[in-house]
Amino acid sequence: MSDTRSVTAAALAIGDELLSGRTRDKNIGHLAELLTATGIELQEVRIVPDEQDRIVEALNALRSRYDYVFTSGGIGPTHDDITADAVAAAFSVECTHDAAALALLGAHYAERGLEFTEARRRMARMPVGARHIDNPVSRAPGFVIGNVHVMAGVPSVFQAMLDNVLPTLNTGVKILSDKVSCPYGEGDIGDPLSAIAKAHPDVNIGSYPRFSGDSFSTEIVIRGRDSVAIRAARRDVEAMLSEITSKLTKKDV
Amino acid sequence: MSDTRSVTAAALAIGDELLSGRTRDKNIGHLAELLTATGIELQEVRIVPDEQDRIVEALNALRSRYDYVFTSGGIGPTHDDITADAVAAAFSVECTHDAAALALLGAHYAERGLEFTEARRRMARMPVGARHIDNPVSRAPGFVIGNVHVMAGVPSVFQAMLDNVLPTLNTGVKILSDKVSCPYGEGDIGDPLSAIAKAHPDVNIGSYPRFSGDSFSTEIVIRGRDSVAIRAARRDVEAMLSEITSKLTKKDV
Repeated sequence: MSDTRSVTAAALAIGDELLSGRTRDKNIGHLAELLTATGIELQEVRIVPDEQDRIVEALNALRSRYDYVFTSGGIGPTHDDITADAVAAAFSVECTHDAAALALLGAHYAERGLEFTEARRRMARMPVGARHIDNPVSRAPGFVIGNVHVMAGVPSVFQAMLDNVLPTLNTGVKILSDKVSCPYGEGDIGDPLSAIAKAHPDVNIGSYPRFSGDSFSTEIVIRGRDSVAIRAARRDVEAMLSEITSKLTKKDV
Repeated sequence: MSDTRSVTAAALAIGDELLSGRTRDKNIGHLAELLTATGIELQEVRIVPDEQDRIVEALNALRSRYDYVFTSGGIGPTHDDITADAVAAAFSVECTHDAAALALLGAHYAERGLEFTEARRRMARMPVGARHIDNPVSRAPGFVIGNVHVMAGVPSVFQAMLDNVLPTLNTGVKILSDKVSCPYGEGDIGDPLSAIAKAHPDVNIGSYPRFSGDSFSTEIVIRGRDSVAIRAARRDVEAMLSEITSKLTKKDV
């Protein structure tokens, strides 16, 4: 389904290791990029520790506010993987060993001649009523309950699960974007760029500085739903840059 | 000051570009690592767009809950840099051009023969009563108000500002950590590791899977405030791994 309203989302990354600095998150940026390309606006991200109260609180805040929530982390086989229980608690349903997931994982480990330990059985736990998200990488499924998509924290598994989830989502009108590389710092372009932003209320103009260790340059990004409006803003940005260039060239003479 | 209680913190990264996927955040992981090394527990992270209401809401939630809040992004010279105004609104104080910051920036641009444009003057805006955070990279200061430290989004500038902030913070007892590399996946170690975690309540044992594209291995991290307790847990983890190795070796025979 594709309609004209915007579809919104939030991400919830779960894990002590992200907050201690042990692990640098690699999932949020990937999710952000794919949601934007799909026509879904990621509007908020939170990272919380492996503590049930904290997960429940964040999840309930986010799922009531956005069309979709995507979580990463905490669905493995060890004692610190408590995301399934926390999600069940947030939805006030029981968390149990899912029969289909047990069958899937049981067959998987039997094939490989590995014992189906209690820890491995733990990966079949999910809130009652949840649907699986297939995991082609390491089998143990993620799950969907309500508007919440629960995925693994290991980036290769997260990405594979997300690839399975994206085609199932409602999407809004895709946000288009265009960018202009600007050799000047924000201090040089700030005033005229602000005037251009005001003159083009249908687009969102972002300005992103880059520091080379010596001087600043800027990337100007124009985003919006209407390609004509984006092109019009782009023309004004380019005209502004030409004017600055000719002014600076005159000064040099 | 160093005391025995834990000192807590939250991070608030501000910027549409982080949510659209255009920019991958590089500040949160760096902050997490340095806070942990300093003895401050990062307990929550949020990412919000460049919208005043959203920044104010997140900031007020975080600053009332944690000892410190560190923000990144939105303090440059362009129209989309609204962090100073939002922070002032969160504290219900005025946001004005700070006299000392104007003097500092005015001298900086005069030295370089650059016009002190309205956009550049914008970088001197901060909530009334805020103290500067020095910016050795590009001069425009960050600022501190209450328990909130407002820093730039450009990573080299964020890092330089953070280096100036860290020595000014109260710290708690440093969290110590030790890690054990484990050649087995979490499915193999989950049950005995869970028993070890229960037997060592004074430490926090985390288990982090890595997927090589073919098989899982695990890094086991033991964290706590007491080095004796960490060593005791480590001995049990190593004994568990030896036992698994000898079992698997027997099977192979």
